[in-house]
Amino acid sequence: MKKDLPHVVIIGAGFGGLTTAQALKRAPVQITVVDRTNHHLFQPLLYQVAMAGLSPADIAAPIRSILRKQKNVTVLLDEATDVNLDEQTVNLRDSELKYDYLVLATGGHTSYFGHDEWEKVAPGLKDLDDAVEIRRRVLLAFEAAEKETDPERHRELLTFVVVGGGPTGVELAGAIAELARFVLARDFRNIHPEAAEILLLEAGPRILPSFAPDLSESAERQLTELGVKVRTGALVTNIDEHGVYLGDEIIKAATVIWGAGVRATALTARLGAPLNRAGHVLINRDLTLPGYHNAFAIGDMTYLEQDGKPLPGVSPVAMQMGRCVARNIKNDLAGKPYEEFRYLDKGSMATIGRKAAIAELGKLHLSGFMAWMAWLLVHIFFLIGFRNRFAVIFNWAWSYFTYQRGARLITGRRLRLPVVESSQGKSEFSVK
Amino acid sequence: MKKDLPHVVIIGAGFGGLTTAQALKRAPVQITVVDRTNHHLFQPLLYQVAMAGLSPADIAAPIRSILRKQKNVTVLLDEATDVNLDEQTVNLRDSELKYDYLVLATGGHTSYFGHDEWEKVAPGLKDLDDAVEIRRRVLLAFEAAEKETDPERHRELLTFVVVGGGPTGVELAGAIAELARFVLARDFRNIHPEAAEILLLEAGPRILPSFAPDLSESAERQLTELGVKVRTGALVTNIDEHGVYLGDEIIKAATVIWGAGVRATALTARLGAPLNRAGHVLINRDLTLPGYHNAFAIGDMTYLEQDGKPLPGVSPVAMQMGRCVARNIKNDLAGKPYEEFRYLDKGSMATIGRKAAIAELGKLHLSGFMAWMAWLLVHIFFLIGFRNRFAVIFNWAWSYFTYQRGARLITGRRLRLPVVESSQGKSEFSVK
Repeated sequence: MKKDLPHVVIIGAGFGGLTTAQALKRAPVQITVVDRTNHHLFQPLLYQVAMAGLSPADIAAPIRSILRKQKNVTVLLDEATDVNLDEQTVNLRDSELKYDYLVLATGGHTSYFGHDEWEKVAPGLKDLDDAVEIRRRVLLAFEAAEKETDPERHRELLTFVVVGGGPTGVELAGAIAELARFVLARDFRNIHPEAAEILLLEAGPRILPSFAPDLSESAERQLTELGVKVRTGALVTNIDEHGVYLGDEIIKAATVIWGAGVRATALTARLGAPLNRAGHVLINRDLTLPGYHNAFAIGDMTYLEQDGKPLPGVSPVAMQMGRCVARNIKNDLAGKPYEEFRYLDKGSMATIGRKAAIAELGKLHLSGFMAWMAWLLVHIFFLIGFRNRFAVIFNWAWSYFTYQRGARLITGRRLRLPVVESSQGKSEFSVK
Repeated sequence: MKKDLPHVVIIGAGFGGLTTAQALKRAPVQITVVDRTNHHLFQPLLYQVAMAGLSPADIAAPIRSILRKQKNVTVLLDEATDVNLDEQTVNLRDSELKYDYLVLATGGHTSYFGHDEWEKVAPGLKDLDDAVEIRRRVLLAFEAAEKETDPERHRELLTFVVVGGGPTGVELAGAIAELARFVLARDFRNIHPEAAEILLLEAGPRILPSFAPDLSESAERQLTELGVKVRTGALVTNIDEHGVYLGDEIIKAATVIWGAGVRATALTARLGAPLNRAGHVLINRDLTLPGYHNAFAIGDMTYLEQDGKPLPGVSPVAMQMGRCVARNIKNDLAGKPYEEFRYLDKGSMATIGRKAAIAELGKLHLSGFMAWMAWLLVHIFFLIGFRNRFAVIFNWAWSYFTYQRGARLITGRRLRLPVVESSQGKSEFSVK
C-alpha cells in the first residue's frame, strides 16, 4: 500500500460500507475500514438465527476474510467515537485517523420511540447477540411451560407477542409459529402445539405497509394459516414484565419481541448535519454531507427522498449507494463532477415461513410458494462466501425435510427462566 | 408413560447420563432426565469451537431431540440443588422429584487448585460459553496486535500460554498454533505469522502423562513442529493480567488458557458420601453410593480404581458406566444381584493439529497422520445426530483444504480488548 495515495476511511462494514470498499478495489486510494465487530452480518437472515434455524457463523463472515485479497484495504476492529469534518479526522477509541475521503455507513439501531426502558423486556433484532438472546428467551419460555402446572401461567409462558408489522416483525412472528407448531411441539410432553399463541401487533391499518395492499392482505392470510394472530390498529402504550399494554387492555405474555423502529446510530448526532426525528442524516443527492465535499453518508443512517418518497432502509439501497460513492470518489480523483444517486428498485420481498412469502417486482405480485422460492434464491445468492451459502442451503434443506432445527441451543452463562407475575387490576386480554 | 412404574431420576445429560437413559429404553421404568442446559455437548470437540473451527451447534444437540422418540423419558431443564438419599428426593430450583432409582452424572468443573481468582484471567474449557469466551479472547488479541505499535506490547498480545499438558491443553496449544500460522496470518497486514508465541506449560516431567512415554515424546515433537514451545517441569505459582508466573520468572502474555484441573461439581459435597481431594465421590464397584442400594454415581464426578489405578475421566468410562447402571437397575427389578463394573479400555487418543495426533491402542502406538485419521473417524462416528456429523465433516474438510475457518466470530455485548500492562520489577521471561 502506497502511503502517499489519498486515504479513504469507511466507518461500518455492513452492506453499504463493504460495497464501497469493494467498488474501490482498483482505485488509486488506500482504504481503512473500521467496524465495531469483526464480522459482516447478512442481516436479512438474522431472524433465522433468532429462531434456531441457522447458526451465527452461517450468516456472518469475518470482514478480514472478505477483504483479504484486496491489497489496498486495512481493516480495524474499533469504534468511531467522533468525527471532525473540518479537520478531516475520525476519533477511534484510543487513536485518530486522518482522511481525504470519509464514508459513513454505520447503519441503524433498534428504536423504542423514546421508551428505552422497554428494551429490557422486549429485545430488538439488530445483531448476532440480539438474535442469540431472542432464541434464548423463546426456547426458555417453552422449557418453563413444560414444567408449569398453573394453567394461567402456562398460557402466559406460551404467549409470544411481536410488536411491529414490518418485514422483521412478520418474519419473526411466522418463524415463532413454525418453531412452536412443527419443531418444538414434538419434543415436549406437556405442551400442545395449539397452546402456543403468537400475536403480531401493528399500529397502522395494515402490515407490511411498504408493499402493495393486495400483498399485505396475502401476507396476513398466510400468517393466519401458520397460526399467527394479526392485530392491526394496535398501538402499544407500555411493555413490562407482565406483557404488552394497548391502552387499558393487557396482553399477558412472557416473551415480547420488538420489531418496530429503527433509528440511526448515535454518531449522526455528532456530525452537526441536519437530522430527521429518528436521527437519520439528511444528505445531498450526491450522497455528501451538506457543506462537505469529501464526506459521504450512506445506508440506514441517512434520509434521502426520491420522487417525493423516502428511500427504504434496505440493503439494495445501501449497496447501490456504496457503488455510487465509489464512482464519485473516482470521479473526484479524475477531476470530474459528482453524479447524483438514483435508486433502481428491483423489487422487494418479505418472507413469512415455510413456503410462505410475498414479492413485489414492479407490477408482478407473487405470493406463497413462488414468492418463497424467489426469496430463498435471491437471499442465498447474495450471501457472501461460498461456505456460508452452502451451509445455509444445507441447514434449510435439513429443516425443511425433517422439521428439525440444528441450532436449538440455549447459551449464556446464567439460566434465567422468564418470570410472569400475575396482573394487578388491569383488564385482561384473553389470548385464547 | 405409566405413573405406577418405578421412577428413575438421572441428573446430567452428558455421556454418562444420556447413555443410562438410552440403555433403559425398553425397561419397565419411567425416567426423568434433568440437565442445567438444553443440550448434550460433544466435549471432545469443544476445543474446535474455542479455536473457531466449528460452531456451537455443530457439537451440541438438544437433549429433547435426542430422546424424543423414547417415550419413557421426560426431560427437564433445571438444576439439582440438593439430594436427600434417605428420603429419596432431589431438590430442583423450585420443585422436588421423588425417585426409586437415582443416577448422578453431573460431571466436572474446571479446578484452579484453590486459586479461583485465576479464573478471570485464565478461563478453562468445560462448556460452550467457555469455548466462545476463549475464541473471543484469542481473536481479540490478534485484533489488538494489528493496531499496536509498541513492539513489547505487540509481543505480549501475540503470546498465548496454555497451562496443563493433558489432552485439553495439547489440543488447545496445537489449535492456537494452527490458527495463528495458517489461518489468521494471511488476513492481517501488520502481524507476521512467526510473531505469535504459543507456550504449553506442564508441571510434571512430560506432557500427556496418561499415555506411554514414547507417545508423549512424539506428541512433543509434533507440537514443536507446529510452532508450540513445550515446557515441562513448569509449575505455575500465579496468574494475573500481566501473564503467568513460574516462581520468580514471569511470562508476559495477554492470553492465558487453563487446561489443567478438573474437580467434581458442587453437588458431590452434599451427598454425605466419602470424597477424594478433588471432590470426586468414592463409589462402590457396582457404581452405587456407599450405603445406598438405589443411588448410583458415574462418570467424571466419581473416583473408582481398577487393577490398582484410578479410571480416567474420559467419555468411554462414563458411557460404559451408564450401561452398567442400566443393567443393574434392570437386574434389581428382576430380583437379581448387581454386577460389578469393569472398564474395557479400547485405547486412547489425543489430537495435536492438522495431521498430527497420537493413539495408544493396547500395544499399538500410532503417531502423526495415521493417528489423526483414527482420531477423526472415531470422533465423527460418535457424534450424536447425522446433521452434526455431516456439518462437522464439511467444516473440517473446508478448513483442511482452504485453511479458512468459518466460525471466526467475535460475539458478546461489549467489545473488550485485552489489556496488558507493563511488568513491574519482575524478572522477565523472554518469549522469543
